[in-house]
Amino acid sequence: MSVSFVRGDAHSVWIQRVWPELDGGRYPVKREVGDEFEVSADIFREGHEALAAVLRYRAIKDTAWREVPMIPAGNDRWVARFRLEENTRYRYTIEGYPDPYQSWMDDLKKRLAAGMDVSSELLEGAALLDNTLERAVGADRVQLESILRAFHAAASLSTRTQLLLDEGTCDLARLYPDRSAATRYDRELEVIADRPLARFGAWYEAFPRSLGAAPGRAGTLKDCLAHLARIAGMGFDVLYLPPIHPIGRTFRKGRNGTLPAAPSDPGSPWAIGNEYGGHKAIEPSLGSLEDFRTLVTAARGHGLEIALDYALQCSPDHPYVREHPEWFYARPDGTIKYAENPPKKYQDIYPLNFSCRDREALWEELKSILLFWIDQGVRIFRVDNPHTKPLPFWGWLIGEIHAVHPDVIFLSEAFTRPKLMYALAKIGFSQSYTYFTWRNFKHEIIEYFTELTHTDEAEYLRGSLFANTPDILAPILQQGGRPAFVMRLVLAATLSSTYGLYSGFELCENDALPDSEEYLDSEKYEIKVRNWDAPENLSGLITHLNAIRRENPALQRYRNLQFYPSSDDNVLCYGKQHGDNAVFVCVNLDPFDPHESEVRLPLQSLGIGPDERFALEDLLEGGRHLVKGAVQTVRLDPAETPAVIWRLMRFPHKAFGTPCY
Amino acid sequence: MSVSFVRGDAHSVWIQRVWPELDGGRYPVKREVGDEFEVSADIFREGHEALAAVLRYRAIKDTAWREVPMIPAGNDRWVARFRLEENTRYRYTIEGYPDPYQSWMDDLKKRLAAGMDVSSELLEGAALLDNTLERAVGADRVQLESILRAFHAAASLSTRTQLLLDEGTCDLARLYPDRSAATRYDRELEVIADRPLARFGAWYEAFPRSLGAAPGRAGTLKDCLAHLARIAGMGFDVLYLPPIHPIGRTFRKGRNGTLPAAPSDPGSPWAIGNEYGGHKAIEPSLGSLEDFRTLVTAARGHGLEIALDYALQCSPDHPYVREHPEWFYARPDGTIKYAENPPKKYQDIYPLNFSCRDREALWEELKSILLFWIDQGVRIFRVDNPHTKPLPFWGWLIGEIHAVHPDVIFLSEAFTRPKLMYALAKIGFSQSYTYFTWRNFKHEIIEYFTELTHTDEAEYLRGSLFANTPDILAPILQQGGRPAFVMRLVLAATLSSTYGLYSGFELCENDALPDSEEYLDSEKYEIKVRNWDAPENLSGLITHLNAIRRENPALQRYRNLQFYPSSDDNVLCYGKQHGDNAVFVCVNLDPFDPHESEVRLPLQSLGIGPDERFALEDLLEGGRHLVKGAVQTVRLDPAETPAVIWRLMRFPHKAFGTPCY
Repeated sequence: MSVSFVRGDAHSVWIQRVWPELDGGRYPVKREVGDEFEVSADIFREGHEALAAVLRYRAIKDTAWREVPMIPAGNDRWVARFRLEENTRYRYTIEGYPDPYQSWMDDLKKRLAAGMDVSSELLEGAALLDNTLERAVGADRVQLESILRAFHAAASLSTRTQLLLDEGTCDLARLYPDRSAATRYDRELEVIADRPLARFGAWYEAFPRSLGAAPGRAGTLKDCLAHLARIAGMGFDVLYLPPIHPIGRTFRKGRNGTLPAAPSDPGSPWAIGNEYGGHKAIEPSLGSLEDFRTLVTAARGHGLEIALDYALQCSPDHPYVREHPEWFYARPDGTIKYAENPPKKYQDIYPLNFSCRDREALWEELKSILLFWIDQGVRIFRVDNPHTKPLPFWGWLIGEIHAVHPDVIFLSEAFTRPKLMYALAKIGFSQSYTYFTWRNFKHEIIEYFTELTHTDEAEYLRGSLFANTPDILAPILQQGGRPAFVMRLVLAATLSSTYGLYSGFELCENDALPDSEEYLDSEKYEIKVRNWDAPENLSGLITHLNAIRRENPALQRYRNLQFYPSSDDNVLCYGKQHGDNAVFVCVNLDPFDPHESEVRLPLQSLGIGPDERFALEDLLEGGRHLVKGAVQTVRLDPAETPAVIWRLMRFPHKAFGTPCY
Repeated sequence: MSVSFVRGDAHSVWIQRVWPELDGGRYPVKREVGDEFEVSADIFREGHEALAAVLRYRAIKDTAWREVPMIPAGNDRWVARFRLEENTRYRYTIEGYPDPYQSWMDDLKKRLAAGMDVSSELLEGAALLDNTLERAVGADRVQLESILRAFHAAASLSTRTQLLLDEGTCDLARLYPDRSAATRYDRELEVIADRPLARFGAWYEAFPRSLGAAPGRAGTLKDCLAHLARIAGMGFDVLYLPPIHPIGRTFRKGRNGTLPAAPSDPGSPWAIGNEYGGHKAIEPSLGSLEDFRTLVTAARGHGLEIALDYALQCSPDHPYVREHPEWFYARPDGTIKYAENPPKKYQDIYPLNFSCRDREALWEELKSILLFWIDQGVRIFRVDNPHTKPLPFWGWLIGEIHAVHPDVIFLSEAFTRPKLMYALAKIGFSQSYTYFTWRNFKHEIIEYFTELTHTDEAEYLRGSLFANTPDILAPILQQGGRPAFVMRLVLAATLSSTYGLYSGFELCENDALPDSEEYLDSEKYEIKVRNWDAPENLSGLITHLNAIRRENPALQRYRNLQFYPSSDDNVLCYGKQHGDNAVFVCVNLDPFDPHESEVRLPLQSLGIGPDERFALEDLLEGGRHLVKGAVQTVRLDPAETPAVIWRLMRFPHKAFGTPCY
């Protein structure tokens, strides 16, 4: 229902178009600890009276509000910032109020300039200070009293004027405003300050069973220890493991997802649960819980965090099936329903019924899985197919976990309808998979990433760019070979601040099942043995790119992506700036042919004149180029390096008079 | 505060991005009686279950809600419309709910197509119908019972399948949905259905005292009667009169706003009130209240409505000053404050203090002014300087009046900061003056009118385009002479559906005070005598334009303005479409020189192929042109006609095979 107005109630400062504010305040926006959080609003009222406004905020656990003055930014827009110091949720709102002393001063100055008589106005000013006196305390009060005494004692108008316009007097009036006529914005909004890894990180996905020490023998959690140095050495921040739980036996899938499985087939890790346990157990062939804790600790020693998979479905052999058949869907004949997408049947998986009669117990149990792994030191969960479970469940679950463990990062693995993906992000997921794998061409990359980083979505959805996943070997990789792998790697690592690779990417593995995005002989159904040092592998480039990301703050931000014009339709040009750091990337999107293109850098917004020299440091190939002008030419050969990454180097012309480098 | 989620509560259909919704539902949007009001929203939930949704609405006086089904429009967007039948305020909201029978059918059809066994699924379908039976009534219930009996009696699966997939069965399931799991959108939104004149009308502003019967004698309300035929004959819908109340004597302004006034000077009508009364009285020299009622009735007979000025300030001689000095601002010495904008003094005017101690009585009295004139048959008020009075006052006042008289139209005369103009429109004003008078060039007209008609503003602010006012003789008219008057007239009459002229415009009066937008010898301070039949007057063109507006529904809509490319920077091309009616306008914005330009018409969106012939009917000059292709050339000479108005005529190719005209 609309705002209503009451007879005689004229006190109102208008606070509108507060930003950020999602869906009328229904959902929090997301930022990261250390950020300066900026809030702006239209603040005004009728007439020409001066106003003041404050941004009020508090960490959710605090009861007291803090305040920072808002500053007018033109056209009745006001802005203020505060620093997000803690990994928590903050509330914020705005209060605006008339500033009668400022209004009075503005008016008085006009009258003085026009040589008008101001004796009556001075009395009005003194009356305003009398009013201020009621609120002033301590030394301020004493000072104000003495100003007023001096005013009333003064004989001349000019002394009186001086006393009231004195900067100290104005400061006192500002310090003790009359906020009885203040208007508080009618909603309290929220911002979540996640830890920085929610925004900036490189993820590496690997199946522990394929990280074996010897060919032909399944890898264990202990074997993983030996890979930590390699993975951390490439510059990754997160090692994400597909489910490590016992794998079901009933309708276990064999190689390439076929039935029946051979006795030696290990099964899909996503068919969770057997006689050794369910979501809180570890597949015995991988090792023990102790081994897992050791892995978590060792990884931390390498600067790596372990991320686990949170996949809420059960194999028919899962303990829940026996202990809580009421948590699943029943057919009319009483049997439990397996997952289906007719005509496809997934008989190795039972979906959970989140609305079952015993749902409160079910939800608690599902929450306890997370708490269990949190107890083992895990703080990152990649959530499998969240879009097939109720949105309110995720809202509740993530809220419950974050209330106690605000440092937990949830990555939503939803490749579904856009609105559903947005909703998952809005209700709490820290990061989201995106359509990146299927955006290959210039116009579609520009359109999609402009949407991701420059619309409301940027306030709540952090797009994680996985260049491949065990489920997605995109056509561009299948067809484009190594040049495509390099090109997609550069895009993933520089378009977003958070990206990931599924192991094998560095070896340019690209054999697919026919007419499919599934890997041939997928690791989902068998144990892989890889030669990590195979010729032409991309480990060096990955290491280099992750180092570039760590050295350039601009690449660590998400919402600062900007696209720039390029003359060739195969060449994409974009950049990121943060503080003094400005990075520009040009990528040849065609993995088959070299292309040359003019690109137009945003010199004007960088404050670089058309005749000013600046340097472009080539971060991939090394070297610097001293150049001039917004338009630069690049030639990018997929057979060599299909991309260039420039860091802009400025010269302090004014200080030194000539370019120096 | 953000949405919160409860353990176990998974029932939720997501209803987001409802449109129209202003500022999270704080303000109503505006439409007009007879409009089909369209509401859309993102409606979805997790998974792939089928959903249904209804748009719920009711006129504010009704208690019962009506419902219309929403239709999916792709990408989880749903749309519905309802007709605004009454001149009132409507509430609307949305309800979405799962449609399990549809989900079941979708699933069953896939299984049947794959040749799967569906015996268990048929039992589930029957169970859903059993559930439907609980809600079905009357004949529907009987029919459903018989379907279920037949189902259970049927031996073959195919008979059972046929029974459950039968269209009649599906209709019954849809007719009695289980809405226990429905989600209601959490806000009720509002739309105001104004009468059509709020959107479409031509206004004529005239000072009654200048409509005298004989030169040298001040006009009276009776004299106005003789002008009604002329004004209505030009096609105007509204005759707006500046204040007709007694005019103050203290500090009365003389010719060109100077002091002191000569004894014969009539004073500014906006300095309201003297010994004959205030806002509810009529200036004796104009006539009696009886004369005014006669004028209102006579005007209606000509299809004209009288609009009055609502100017809330008082001359020092106003009865309020004597009777209610507490309603005004006092100086420290106890005298009443006159209006000031230092160094300018407006000693002939006292502003009201809307926050004074006795404000409730003041506000009631100000409301009673409107009710008084409403009693005399007035339904349109042009409100003087609303931006200097409290916004909550207007919100309250307009709400009070509209609750009883929804047909009253309020025009906001605010030329102030944009945000304040928006706020006045949001809280209730039906129409708003705009910056039109100061938008002369192509890029600024395109930018401003795109903002007015294609942003949120279009939902609540109806821009009224006055080509001139007693306060604004724009530089383009001062300098451009008659060609500029013609050009600005065409722009005003075709860019917006509602526009106005201040009398004298048709005579191309353009003598200004030096360095000012004020008229020289302004009618605000003296009585004018005009020769309405002066050579080169624009009455014929005004009549023609208003007839074109009445004949073309596209020109009667406000939010359908579209700009089209033109090759010459002096030529503006735009159009409006409504139903089958499509009108295009090309205007030479340079009053001095002829310009030729190519313009590109939107053939594709009109469904006209590049090789298809169509006709452009020249609505100003007459004649038709049979043409082909989107690009047309115009040459516009300000000395002749600086604009062309085309109506698109299509030919039913398919019916007749050849163009016919």
